[in-house]
Amino acid sequence: MEEKASTAIAGISHDRDLIINLDQGDPTLFEPFWKEVGNNATVVIPGWQKMSYFSDPKNLCWFLEPEFANEVLRLHQIVGNAVTDNRHIIVGVGSTQLIHAALFALASTEARQPVNVISAAPYYSMYSGIADFMKSGMFRWAGDAAAFNGDDNFIELVCSPNNPDGEIREAVRGNEAGKRVHDMAYYWPQYTPMRSPADQDIMLFTVSKATGHAGTRIGWALVKDAAVARKMVKFIEMNTIGVSKDSQVRAAKILKIISDGYELVDLKGGSKFFHFGRCLLVNRWQRLRQAVEASGRFSLPQFPSEFCEFFKEHAETCPGFAWLRCEDQTIEDLEVFFKNINILTRSGRHFGVGPEYVRVSMLDRDANFDVFIKRISFLE
Amino acid sequence: MEEKASTAIAGISHDRDLIINLDQGDPTLFEPFWKEVGNNATVVIPGWQKMSYFSDPKNLCWFLEPEFANEVLRLHQIVGNAVTDNRHIIVGVGSTQLIHAALFALASTEARQPVNVISAAPYYSMYSGIADFMKSGMFRWAGDAAAFNGDDNFIELVCSPNNPDGEIREAVRGNEAGKRVHDMAYYWPQYTPMRSPADQDIMLFTVSKATGHAGTRIGWALVKDAAVARKMVKFIEMNTIGVSKDSQVRAAKILKIISDGYELVDLKGGSKFFHFGRCLLVNRWQRLRQAVEASGRFSLPQFPSEFCEFFKEHAETCPGFAWLRCEDQTIEDLEVFFKNINILTRSGRHFGVGPEYVRVSMLDRDANFDVFIKRISFLE
Repeated sequence: MEEKASTAIAGISHDRDLIINLDQGDPTLFEPFWKEVGNNATVVIPGWQKMSYFSDPKNLCWFLEPEFANEVLRLHQIVGNAVTDNRHIIVGVGSTQLIHAALFALASTEARQPVNVISAAPYYSMYSGIADFMKSGMFRWAGDAAAFNGDDNFIELVCSPNNPDGEIREAVRGNEAGKRVHDMAYYWPQYTPMRSPADQDIMLFTVSKATGHAGTRIGWALVKDAAVARKMVKFIEMNTIGVSKDSQVRAAKILKIISDGYELVDLKGGSKFFHFGRCLLVNRWQRLRQAVEASGRFSLPQFPSEFCEFFKEHAETCPGFAWLRCEDQTIEDLEVFFKNINILTRSGRHFGVGPEYVRVSMLDRDANFDVFIKRISFLE
Repeated sequence: MEEKASTAIAGISHDRDLIINLDQGDPTLFEPFWKEVGNNATVVIPGWQKMSYFSDPKNLCWFLEPEFANEVLRLHQIVGNAVTDNRHIIVGVGSTQLIHAALFALASTEARQPVNVISAAPYYSMYSGIADFMKSGMFRWAGDAAAFNGDDNFIELVCSPNNPDGEIREAVRGNEAGKRVHDMAYYWPQYTPMRSPADQDIMLFTVSKATGHAGTRIGWALVKDAAVARKMVKFIEMNTIGVSKDSQVRAAKILKIISDGYELVDLKGGSKFFHFGRCLLVNRWQRLRQAVEASGRFSLPQFPSEFCEFFKEHAETCPGFAWLRCEDQTIEDLEVFFKNINILTRSGRHFGVGPEYVRVSMLDRDANFDVFIKRISFLE
């Protein structure tokens, strides 16, 4: 609600009572791009189409719309962020459902003890809840992967670039017997330089962070092993009997527009989505770094400029979240500090570290981001 | 895949090798209605709309699209199948996700023992799997409600009209301390006479069975207690961070067309959805009953004609599934018997009863239903 209100009165940022919610990572910053694209990105579905449960009964993932699968393959090919050969594509209700599905698939239904789920701190704040909230006997949250002392019975969640801090990551428990899920929601050119195509056994992506369409709730997994893929499908059957066809059709259209922007030469430069997103994020990060430096109270992660195989030039890392660390000894809890100036953030405590950290969304609409920058620029 | 193949070669039903899949209840029989409606039922979503995670941050169910909620209320008002006053509407990825959410909400996270989940046999074949597949410590499947001997620590799933047998049901464990979830997916005028508006604490519905749009994966719950509603929302947050906006917008359009067909007087009779559906199902049930009687091998449930408050006349009960019982002593397993004539059905064993029963979908496309009737009419 804060968000809507604040957008409505953009410009009157001197109103200190206005609450700016940068707790979630709602990727609305990409809206202007899609407005600019206009009708080409509009999805149209007649009432009599896509009524069946089934999309493609011959496919292992029988609820996967073929046109969505094709656009997923095409976009990975263009961007070069993931190897897609000999992979099964599993569509999910966002990558969140796919994390559940992957844990289900990798855990043994016969094991007497639940498998330990770990991730290196700071880890994405939802991982612990996802692992524990159903009190499943199949898996349980076991915390920071770096501190894990258990046996080989573990699943490591590897988020790269990492939410919250943007770091490029490998599995902490590299060559051990445990299993890995690679959450690659942010491995797209607007956030980080494209190094080489990722080539992991289970890789998760989501339209939400790739294109900004969080409301579609569409994610996808690239899965090497057919037995694991089959178990993930089984999970989604039991959980939701498949995934919205309408959103898959829409996501296919959205991905197609992005790919067309890079493959069809007669289009104007304005429809190059990753260029748009990168430009926006580079600008925001410059403004944030200036404000943070001027304040003298906080610090931000530093990233080396790296060669991006997609843009074919050296590029900055511009994560979807700012991982702010408090350098002011008089502030005990950074989330509370920001709350007092009506900026909602997420405390480091949710990510397995201390209250001297907060995660701040960099993905909100311009008006809200502007207010955020102004407030930290004029701290007393 | 069988389904597609069979539809493609509709008419050549003499081909005995053609496999007809009536195992699932894929509600494709309503497609012709939506073709007839034409463009009015088409949903159009521009690329820049519905991008946010949030639909209505002020609502307890923050991912519920207001236009969908309004059309749900309007349709219930017109049909008279459920009391909506003082209820929270919770949208889910089909009613399947809402069953999970309801179990989660009604079970205690603090209890040392999982709560027993029960339902009177024959019960919907997915209930046991939904309760058990995550090996949750919060709840567990305990089978037939009529045979349940446990204490008050139970949740009864009450499906009415019942899947598989079409019976109108009350809770078996009527006035006891346990909790109830009323699965009302089939309480619509095409399937059964509308008696009075249901007035239960937790009622589940789904677009899939109401309108035939299974592919949207949109269900909704009407929930009296705010604390229960809040826990259901919590489940959906942790499970999928909300529900497809696109499908909610589409479902709103679809429900609107149905309501308009009854409220806007200048429309032709052809756009009265429940009349269309009822006509189709009455015809199918007549043909099925004739064929079953002629065979002498099977029997079907009998339903008294009852007054329907929606159609304002006495109406037949025409369930979405035929619950066939074998009366031929030489047949041991009815599912196997049908499989031998290339009709896929679901054995009574999945519903807590014996192999002398099968459930057969009445909701497939005309061509497949025709083949099914012909095959059972010409059994040797």
